Amino acid sequence: MQEMVKVVVDAMGGDNAPAEIVRGAVDAVNKRNDIKVILTGKQKDIEDQLQKYTYPKEQIEIVCASEVIETAEPPVKAIRSKKDSSIVVGMNLVKKGQADAFVSAGSSGAILVGGQLIVGRIKGIERPPLAPLIPTKNGAALLVDCGANVDARPSHLVQFAKMGATYMEHVVGIKNPKVGIVNIGAEEEKGNALVKETFPLLKQCTDINFIGSVEARDIPYGICDVIVCEAFVGNVILKLYEGVGAVLISKVKQGMMTTLRSKIGAMLVKPALKKTLKAFDAGQYGGAPLLGLNGLVVKAHGSSKANEITNSIIQCVQFKQQQINEKIREKIMMQEN
Amino acid sequence: MQEMVKVVVDAMGGDNAPAEIVRGAVDAVNKRNDIKVILTGKQKDIEDQLQKYTYPKEQIEIVCASEVIETAEPPVKAIRSKKDSSIVVGMNLVKKGQADAFVSAGSSGAILVGGQLIVGRIKGIERPPLAPLIPTKNGAALLVDCGANVDARPSHLVQFAKMGATYMEHVVGIKNPKVGIVNIGAEEEKGNALVKETFPLLKQCTDINFIGSVEARDIPYGICDVIVCEAFVGNVILKLYEGVGAVLISKVKQGMMTTLRSKIGAMLVKPALKKTLKAFDAGQYGGAPLLGLNGLVVKAHGSSKANEITNSIIQCVQFKQQQINEKIREKIMMQEN
Repeated sequence: MQEMVKVVVDAMGGDNAPAEIVRGAVDAVNKRNDIKVILTGKQKDIEDQLQKYTYPKEQIEIVCASEVIETAEPPVKAIRSKKDSSIVVGMNLVKKGQADAFVSAGSSGAILVGGQLIVGRIKGIERPPLAPLIPTKNGAALLVDCGANVDARPSHLVQFAKMGATYMEHVVGIKNPKVGIVNIGAEEEKGNALVKETFPLLKQCTDINFIGSVEARDIPYGICDVIVCEAFVGNVILKLYEGVGAVLISKVKQGMMTTLRSKIGAMLVKPALKKTLKAFDAGQYGGAPLLGLNGLVVKAHGSSKANEITNSIIQCVQFKQQQINEKIREKIMMQEN
Repeated sequence: MQEMVKVVVDAMGGDNAPAEIVRGAVDAVNKRNDIKVILTGKQKDIEDQLQKYTYPKEQIEIVCASEVIETAEPPVKAIRSKKDSSIVVGMNLVKKGQADAFVSAGSSGAILVGGQLIVGRIKGIERPPLAPLIPTKNGAALLVDCGANVDARPSHLVQFAKMGATYMEHVVGIKNPKVGIVNIGAEEEKGNALVKETFPLLKQCTDINFIGSVEARDIPYGICDVIVCEAFVGNVILKLYEGVGAVLISKVKQGMMTTLRSKIGAMLVKPALKKTLKAFDAGQYGGAPLLGLNGLVVKAHGSSKANEITNSIIQCVQFKQQQINEKIREKIMMQEN
């Protein structure tokens, strides 16, 4: 029998916790029999939700945690002081090897800090980046780093490129993924100090398919599979994607409602349009993995519904079965030798 | 009689030069009698275009320039060696006070370098930023800096904020414009080193309406009127705006063409939709001013058609009549005292 992948899920994290989180966990185990979910959080709250559903009981377990880390709390202090929070308890299970992965829609800061302090980095990894998939014209690209390490150094970006390429190849299934660095022009001499220093280092990497600079304009067209950038820039890219997308869709809707003629047209267009636009919605991919840790940590959107939690949990299976961390470890060791 | 505003237009710059540039100039003088356009470039090429149109002859003049700076040329070298290029000749007219403004769709690098080396900075201005208007849900916002000064310092960003606010107030007509700094979270303690250092300096400025950090997600909603950021980030914002917009529109079109039902709907929706989406197109605003120079320099898109050139020329009138540079000079002097 196939080995079970054990995924801890923070039942208390996110705007829609615990209801949507628990539902997401139930949906995941109902879909796949190779997943065991461990829900951390307040026992009573979790049980109240679980009793609504039918699911294979042996695939969901509760581990109690009496505290909750709120979004506004300073992350380092929260991780250190709230030892019995759903995040700290959950991450400790991964640390002790009692689980393979941890999924949370809770405080980004606490997840990033906890990932480093509790789960810990793979030996040789300098900084673990947050790496969400973002939609492109005909697929998706991995954005590393989208917010974990501001003011990163060139050596960090090189590791981001390697880890990102490993993820895209083995989790998403893109053969020899194209890696690009975000720049303000296509030429090698363009850029800020960080990009100018990083560019030649990436060119020297024989274990990735580095295609050079990519301009932000070309990212949505899917010009590369792994988009390497410093966290401040990555965060701007991720959030502007969401913002421009949302405003433009609202403009399209508004435009369709301006005349009687267009209103009739809108009714006819709606179903087909909805389907196409869904392909351009970031939510479908589940959360963003924090790469380079001794175990997988996935950060889901704070606004996650059950569907994103389910996708985040299922993502962990591929990550574990493809032995992504072992592959990252190998790449980093080769780099050091 | 109202004083004429003299605008030099680089007839040789951009993908559609000289045809669209000359047509844009003709349209501008046909629209307004307070503008005089001086076209710089190859006399024969310009005359061949001009003879196609009817316009008040006294409002367009040609000043010969035998050379053209190509986009791929290293900017500093090009500005120094091609003394008889349409850009250098045109900028010299502004420098000597024979014209008020210079508009070009040519090489960005050459325009930025020429602006500093030939036209020169206003005394006290450390770095002149490129400041395009970008569309928002119900209007437009000024993005400073979108590409002129990578790796800027906090004092530069403070000047960008002041110049941007002056522009939005007096050229675009937004009373007491809201100024925000691009950040990766709304809280004051968030950000990279540059933003953390700049934030308190902006808070101290009593002459601008600083609203704090803005996340990229909120920019398209029009959360502020002046968006302050370092050039690398600004360039990513500008280009991602274009990229996400273009891909999403193509997705909408594709979605509308998937079924017979949706195709019929598309025909009905099209006119209304086109109008709404036009409001979200950056081209309508004309080029981006390079703020803080002794005279106005406007960089139009390389792909500019006549319409963008006309809008860029007309923008110069408002800039001159509102005495933007005098207002910037005052603000900077107050800062120094």
